[in-house]
Amino acid sequence: MSALQVAMAEVARTIEAELERRLPASSADAATGPEARLVEAMRYAALGPGKRFRPFLVIAGARLFDVHDSASLPAAIAVEMIHAYSLVHDDLPAMDNSELRRGRPSCHVKFGEATAILAGDALLTLAFGVLADESGGANGPEATVRLKLIARLAAAAGIHGMAGGQALDLAFANESHQAAEIARMERMKTGELIAFSCEAGAILAQAPERARMALHSYAHDLGLAYQIADDILDAEGSEDATGKSVGRDAEQGKATFVAQLGLEQARRQAGMLAAQAVQHLDLFGEKADLLRSVADFVIRRRG
Amino acid sequence: MSALQVAMAEVARTIEAELERRLPASSADAATGPEARLVEAMRYAALGPGKRFRPFLVIAGARLFDVHDSASLPAAIAVEMIHAYSLVHDDLPAMDNSELRRGRPSCHVKFGEATAILAGDALLTLAFGVLADESGGANGPEATVRLKLIARLAAAAGIHGMAGGQALDLAFANESHQAAEIARMERMKTGELIAFSCEAGAILAQAPERARMALHSYAHDLGLAYQIADDILDAEGSEDATGKSVGRDAEQGKATFVAQLGLEQARRQAGMLAAQAVQHLDLFGEKADLLRSVADFVIRRRG
Repeated sequence: MSALQVAMAEVARTIEAELERRLPASSADAATGPEARLVEAMRYAALGPGKRFRPFLVIAGARLFDVHDSASLPAAIAVEMIHAYSLVHDDLPAMDNSELRRGRPSCHVKFGEATAILAGDALLTLAFGVLADESGGANGPEATVRLKLIARLAAAAGIHGMAGGQALDLAFANESHQAAEIARMERMKTGELIAFSCEAGAILAQAPERARMALHSYAHDLGLAYQIADDILDAEGSEDATGKSVGRDAEQGKATFVAQLGLEQARRQAGMLAAQAVQHLDLFGEKADLLRSVADFVIRRRG
Repeated sequence: MSALQVAMAEVARTIEAELERRLPASSADAATGPEARLVEAMRYAALGPGKRFRPFLVIAGARLFDVHDSASLPAAIAVEMIHAYSLVHDDLPAMDNSELRRGRPSCHVKFGEATAILAGDALLTLAFGVLADESGGANGPEATVRLKLIARLAAAAGIHGMAGGQALDLAFANESHQAAEIARMERMKTGELIAFSCEAGAILAQAPERARMALHSYAHDLGLAYQIADDILDAEGSEDATGKSVGRDAEQGKATFVAQLGLEQARRQAGMLAAQAVQHLDLFGEKADLLRSVADFVIRRRG
């Protein structure tokens, strides 16, 4: 395994344990009330076979500034909960109508639509609860910094970020769009949350604006490369490798880079973006080697 | 008009103006992108003919501690956005399937299901953004206090509060339940957000725990009385007066106090709870007169 794979696996284990700790407990609630089904749906959506890509970016980005993992963990958990909620809602019949996710039935297929909607709502709510929670203790970041993180996360997930981007994605279906419009949509839909992940460490460390902006630029190039790679996987990947329904983009007439540029040009574009992303990391010297290898990982992944 | 009606109308105007200021602007976004539809859906759900009952509780509760309206306004706006999002999601076909809300078509009827789901998500997200926003300026509450508010709001809206309560409500459909179980469900579904509203001022003022707990107890009795009154309105109200579909509870086999106790007993129960609510306010003397009259208003309202 490469250094990146080792580091990602290690972070994934930490995240899984911390999610387990932060999510409502399965057994206790199951014993006391019929909301057990909702608890199970939340846990199903957040736990299990995720790459934990965004939490990894949070942790790796924070290490650039010598922010201890324990101090960046709440932001890592919060962004993963937001990501998990977005997958649950995006998969709903009224949205992308996807029945497979991470190699398993989507949340609404398993628990029903009403419970899936509520599980998404509850995960989104809990994400902010985690960032505001005081149990972080004396070593946690100070209150003003945590408020900044919350404001930044709300902006990244809201109308000018992820939620707005998903609305654009739906609006673009069965229409032809220029690559620039698709890039704007993808930047909102996935890029903003990835940007939050990369910047969280700089916010926590109260790093100079120049450092935060470098990570912001890195994240936007990385996010776009990630999304193009995702489109390519959907176009040519197998369900076995990706663990989600494939070929749905074309089926649903989605506006993707692959549809606009073709497979070969899309692959070249992703490579250029990954190379460009890495250049923004010069500021950090070899401390940023892990983030450099992430850019390579993003365009080579098979699932 | 009574003193309460005057005060509520005044707060409603303030809230409307502040919501207008905090929501994404209609014209600007409409001109620049196809996410205009989502912006319109958010505005449709949050603006217009609401009673602004929860924001009023926030403002009135904060005045008990001489917290200026400008300092409690963000909490008032946040709780109203959470309330608005919950109505949008609760009305969805997979949930309560209600087509009428506040005298107008429900959000999903007007904008489609996908946009309604996203509008709810974006309002929920924006609520936390408002509480974390730094533009409050030097007169705003300090950061630790604002984090407490965010944590409290997340708890009230999440799995152990509103979202969990809605799950119980759905699970209880077409089943017979004891009044105590219904009370627990209602306490989670509507009571927790009302409790947040009543306690927000005490949190902002860093008031003694005894004062916050008195408002907590007041809120729980008030919330239950409010919900029973709501059930009664659904059972015997008219769509003209309530502005939402009525008779749906019985139609959907919902577990309500009216179904369990009958109309007369439910009405008596609401009266007892309102009287009990008021007793918790003794601590505050005549400063709490407005909140006292709220208890009376809650059980007498016709819509």
